[in-house]
Amino acid sequence: MTDIHTLTRKLQRKNDSKIILYVGDGLGGLPLEPGGKTELETANTPNLDALAARSSLGMSVPVLPGIAPGSGPGHLGLFGYDPLQYDIGRGVLEALGIDFELGPNDVAIRGNYCTIDGEGNITDRRAGRIASEIGEKLCEKLDTIKIPGVEVFVHHVKEYRLVIVFRAEGLGGNVDDTDPQKTGVPPLAPKGNDTASEKTAEVCAEFLRQAAEVLKDDAPANLLTMRGIAKMPPIPTFEEVYGTRAAAIAVYPMYRGLARLVGMDILDAGQTLDDQMKCLEQNWDNYDFFFVHFKYTDSTGEDGNFDAKVQRTEELDSAIPRMTVLKPDVLVVTGDHSTPAKMKAHSGHAVPTLLASDICRFDGSTTFGEAACRIGELGQFEAKYLMLQVLAHAGRLEKYGA
Amino acid sequence: MTDIHTLTRKLQRKNDSKIILYVGDGLGGLPLEPGGKTELETANTPNLDALAARSSLGMSVPVLPGIAPGSGPGHLGLFGYDPLQYDIGRGVLEALGIDFELGPNDVAIRGNYCTIDGEGNITDRRAGRIASEIGEKLCEKLDTIKIPGVEVFVHHVKEYRLVIVFRAEGLGGNVDDTDPQKTGVPPLAPKGNDTASEKTAEVCAEFLRQAAEVLKDDAPANLLTMRGIAKMPPIPTFEEVYGTRAAAIAVYPMYRGLARLVGMDILDAGQTLDDQMKCLEQNWDNYDFFFVHFKYTDSTGEDGNFDAKVQRTEELDSAIPRMTVLKPDVLVVTGDHSTPAKMKAHSGHAVPTLLASDICRFDGSTTFGEAACRIGELGQFEAKYLMLQVLAHAGRLEKYGA
Repeated sequence: MTDIHTLTRKLQRKNDSKIILYVGDGLGGLPLEPGGKTELETANTPNLDALAARSSLGMSVPVLPGIAPGSGPGHLGLFGYDPLQYDIGRGVLEALGIDFELGPNDVAIRGNYCTIDGEGNITDRRAGRIASEIGEKLCEKLDTIKIPGVEVFVHHVKEYRLVIVFRAEGLGGNVDDTDPQKTGVPPLAPKGNDTASEKTAEVCAEFLRQAAEVLKDDAPANLLTMRGIAKMPPIPTFEEVYGTRAAAIAVYPMYRGLARLVGMDILDAGQTLDDQMKCLEQNWDNYDFFFVHFKYTDSTGEDGNFDAKVQRTEELDSAIPRMTVLKPDVLVVTGDHSTPAKMKAHSGHAVPTLLASDICRFDGSTTFGEAACRIGELGQFEAKYLMLQVLAHAGRLEKYGA
Repeated sequence: MTDIHTLTRKLQRKNDSKIILYVGDGLGGLPLEPGGKTELETANTPNLDALAARSSLGMSVPVLPGIAPGSGPGHLGLFGYDPLQYDIGRGVLEALGIDFELGPNDVAIRGNYCTIDGEGNITDRRAGRIASEIGEKLCEKLDTIKIPGVEVFVHHVKEYRLVIVFRAEGLGGNVDDTDPQKTGVPPLAPKGNDTASEKTAEVCAEFLRQAAEVLKDDAPANLLTMRGIAKMPPIPTFEEVYGTRAAAIAVYPMYRGLARLVGMDILDAGQTLDDQMKCLEQNWDNYDFFFVHFKYTDSTGEDGNFDAKVQRTEELDSAIPRMTVLKPDVLVVTGDHSTPAKMKAHSGHAVPTLLASDICRFDGSTTFGEAACRIGELGQFEAKYLMLQVLAHAGRLEKYGA
């Protein structure tokens, strides 16, 4: 089978079109009862509804039918990278999200401070969710750890979360998590699954040995667990595969990290949707493609708060006029996955998707919601194909074949 | 591309959910005239209609668009095994269907008694459809045949049908059928398509030579033809790939054989749908996954009897309350292919499918039929992905990626 990017490298055409990919994280939802409406269908979204009338709608399948993706595969799919082909470790995502520039000799690790008792058993996997100020100070202490032949970087992320990077030639990225996912037991020993990763596991073990010493008086954060121990896979950039100058406007680190992974420039998004819109306006002339990320449709879904997700969906809607006034050639509104409040989790349900462009086959929709998307012009499609539609509707793809 | 089962092995999560896969064989149909209704749409199915209101509907494509599958690929697809990857010979299916435990050195063959005239030409490809009692006695005679270096097993199936198994190391499973598919000509000579299969072809030829001698006075069953000469492919079990304890409740041998092929336990299904429901009730606590097979929607379709298929569809519907009362977490109603009475044959039309679960995205359907399924939430999907949706709706899949 031809790879999507083999095709886009060959067919890409440059023009001065402007594209916005507006991602409502976890946008898809569920009705609470048979016959009911989803969060998106319940929300009052006059701007999205007006946009639907000049759009094609459809349903995006993030990975494969039924498969609930994490944020990594969810976004890679939307960016046109087959999420089953590109497997991005959690450590890599976290490192990218704090602007750490990972190189080919780097192994990145997501760390969680935890609490251990006198016997070495974990009593709290998140160290009482310590404040960020404390987490930051402890990271400074850990950053003094020395391991012969290995450069060690320790960076704080937020509260009990940190990133550790080991830099040395020959370190593998296939080491199991040390977080046992439960309390009352000690952390697992680092275990490498190939020769190079056994070497990494030894480095992890030495780091953890020294960390136990460094943190011994810092309860509740008197140790850490390691998760998502991974190297960055080789991944081609947006510029290479699509010929676009792309920028990300995302408030949360993880999503900036994902955008950086595919070579997008990371803009200063500020803290609010209003900040993000200002950023979009200010940078409108400098890029062809803008990825705008809105987190709260996911977090309210994860909380199981249907009404809050409805409200956040209305907030998502409120930014639409500030985008349409810029007259993008293509404006897509979609999600990286569904996060139904009913399930309090990412789910494998397909994701409502809207693509507005002057050359859409308008499908007569008058509202943006799951029921309308189910019968929309774009049909049900794997997320990895969305970028082909985006580029096509932006006039950025040549004809295939004579 | 990642194989479905690579994914499910990694993501499978055990819980105490219960799943029923209720297969109406050949369920999909055709309207007799433009504007008409299909068999399923014509049938009075109050139970399925009520279920539809709390389900997601969709259309299953058994193999690829337009491809009409046999029972083997049709069921393998529903079980989540790519029917283009797993090619199961007819002989293997027949052997599994009579509880013959095939090993790795076995070649299985479906035999049909036939009638030959004095010149050795076939005059009846089914030996006048002899009674089962006669077929059984003749199989006992054939079972006395000895071939040096090869264990020979001959088992009667039903009427003119039998199974022959040759057991020896080094026998190949790629031998052409000897049934010429017409009368007035002699059976074809067994022909192997690789070195190991040439050896098998020699064994077949010797068996047929001796059979002609043994059966010479048994007209109309004075010879046999051989079809579907094949070995069992290595195929992982349901337990391995999905982590479920699965059981089959099927009246017909072929479908028990298919279920055994993927490692399901075969329960005593009795002879009627009522027997099958009793079996389901009695075994409810012992398994996670139940495959319940209903044959008559196919056989009436094959007969070209629209009204009889409608009636059998109503019978299919009548068992639904005995399933729903058990409160399965996921109940799927689908078919392995379409068998439109109008065509008197399996067809490549997509198959109406219903998935009922509390975490469905209910799609507002009020009836179960082709028209409703065409616009359902599950969309049009390849049958091999159905199990992903089933497991996801049973909470039996972890999130993919971070």
